[in-house]
Amino acid sequence: MSGYGLGMTRSARHVNLASRPNGAPVPANFEVVEADVPAAQDGEIVVANRFMSVDPYMRGRMNDVKSYVPPFQIGEPLNGGAVGEVIESNSSDVAVGDHVVHGLGWREIAVLPASQAQPAASVDGVSLSANLGVLGMPGMTAYAGLLDVAAFKEGDAVFVSGAAGAVGSLVGQLAKVKGASLVVGSAGSDEKVAWLTEELGYDTAFNYKTGSVAKQLLAAAPDGIDVYFDNVGGDHLQAALHALNVHGRVAMCGAISMYNNTEPAPGPNNLSLAIGKRLSLRGFIVSDHASIRDDFIREVGGWLVDGTIKAEETVMQGIESAGDAFIGLLAGANTGKMVVEL
Amino acid sequence: MSGYGLGMTRSARHVNLASRPNGAPVPANFEVVEADVPAAQDGEIVVANRFMSVDPYMRGRMNDVKSYVPPFQIGEPLNGGAVGEVIESNSSDVAVGDHVVHGLGWREIAVLPASQAQPAASVDGVSLSANLGVLGMPGMTAYAGLLDVAAFKEGDAVFVSGAAGAVGSLVGQLAKVKGASLVVGSAGSDEKVAWLTEELGYDTAFNYKTGSVAKQLLAAAPDGIDVYFDNVGGDHLQAALHALNVHGRVAMCGAISMYNNTEPAPGPNNLSLAIGKRLSLRGFIVSDHASIRDDFIREVGGWLVDGTIKAEETVMQGIESAGDAFIGLLAGANTGKMVVEL
Repeated sequence: MSGYGLGMTRSARHVNLASRPNGAPVPANFEVVEADVPAAQDGEIVVANRFMSVDPYMRGRMNDVKSYVPPFQIGEPLNGGAVGEVIESNSSDVAVGDHVVHGLGWREIAVLPASQAQPAASVDGVSLSANLGVLGMPGMTAYAGLLDVAAFKEGDAVFVSGAAGAVGSLVGQLAKVKGASLVVGSAGSDEKVAWLTEELGYDTAFNYKTGSVAKQLLAAAPDGIDVYFDNVGGDHLQAALHALNVHGRVAMCGAISMYNNTEPAPGPNNLSLAIGKRLSLRGFIVSDHASIRDDFIREVGGWLVDGTIKAEETVMQGIESAGDAFIGLLAGANTGKMVVEL
Repeated sequence: MSGYGLGMTRSARHVNLASRPNGAPVPANFEVVEADVPAAQDGEIVVANRFMSVDPYMRGRMNDVKSYVPPFQIGEPLNGGAVGEVIESNSSDVAVGDHVVHGLGWREIAVLPASQAQPAASVDGVSLSANLGVLGMPGMTAYAGLLDVAAFKEGDAVFVSGAAGAVGSLVGQLAKVKGASLVVGSAGSDEKVAWLTEELGYDTAFNYKTGSVAKQLLAAAPDGIDVYFDNVGGDHLQAALHALNVHGRVAMCGAISMYNNTEPAPGPNNLSLAIGKRLSLRGFIVSDHASIRDDFIREVGGWLVDGTIKAEETVMQGIESAGDAFIGLLAGANTGKMVVEL
């Protein structure tokens, strides 16, 4: 414990929500502000953030609607996942120099109770930023969603939408490692499609922007699918409901195709197929699945080190790029995990 | 075993599918035909049907589309649940005079392998026709859907659509017996609504034809619902998704609002609420849940005898009324189970 926080003044930058997006977010929705950093109180730590995360779920919090997390407030700092180095500690549980993961991103320096930070996973040869991606919330989302929520079993044929994203890119690789009979992915560019099949081991992939999702999925999986990992919603979900075999399972993880909608979009017109095909659709959020975290770190960490699983990142530089990173994320500008290096 | 079937000729009436309905079925889709009844072969029985069932799922089989059961064929007899008395038996397992339940309804006399019939449940003071309703497939559907599929637990608030139907009328009563904190039903007439609350013990009910489902559900369950038993689909499902609490569960049993549609209707525009609220939606068909049949007969049979649970039937007379019974069923003309007495 280094007790010299009291009275010390630091100044650092953070990002405020300047206005609520109407549809797709624009740069004017974000404002970078320099301000004094509050002093650390008893039990608190000061963290110099090294990387901050931008994630699709943050779009929902920019609307003024009730959800499972409260909305961001205009004129207040945004927040989200971050990893950094402890530069001051008023807690006996955390030492200066430790690397921690916490929920106060979108700022260069974070002050928070030590109890709200957790030690960063450290895996040989893997960047610290992996704690925000393949070894962090998105990776755990892929792991929990495929294995717990969709109850994946060996021999299943799996379809993953948003397959080149932080979550989707791991889902397909996990399915292959665990013995899927077929792994199909969709993504929004030919480059991403090539990356999925040539680098990540997807059996087949297609570009949803250049043709019907339903037809391309049917061609890719003529015998149907058993599991659909949904990051997208919309016509992807409708196509998957058509393609799912009896007793098929959908892990509903995200609906990025709808996040920028200003009006509700019609849902799948074939949802009642779920009755005769005995489908199950389960929505989930990763924080409900903390009990499998140890298994996740052990398995995925091991596969990262031995090269079985690959993780790519799209890294933007500096807090002034955070808004653009987020805007680009929703537009599909990333391959793999999108992070901002601070 | 009475072996005198060989060579004996009987004539009886049955109902053919005369043409496929386009939208709502009409009388001309059905044709009552008199024909010779085939002789019973070895292992077969001859059953004089006493009651035949009309059920919403039959509408799907009248379309020429692949589903979990093959479509009916034009010019061929329809079929469905029936209960009757064995009048001839070439099987040592079934005696003349036995009452059996089987799948060859829509005819006065059925000839089938004894192995495809099961003994009718016999409960004191309960009509034989209950084998097609509260003690038969619809009752078992209610039981399996609420307890297995929706994983109902004491204290849950439950919403049932099509609540005055054969399935729905039992779902609400089961939920009350099993300790629901609130049971809400929707039905299509003020008379049915009154029956639900005054006779069946529903806490509250509303007429979906006289107001918004969403607003009426919100007023009936201001603290939300935990289980939705869906017999209807459409705007009922959309309203339920809005009203469901975190970790809510939907048993997808039927979508009667859509069965007569000639074009696919848009699905719920709020399905992505399932993510943040961690909802699960599970389609099911009752035949997957045969393992709980003994529990079902014991529990529901007992509650019928002691008056805890009430079952109503709408009984039409004679095979010539079978088409009208089915047309009326889809239009909501029934309270409780719709059967035809032969």
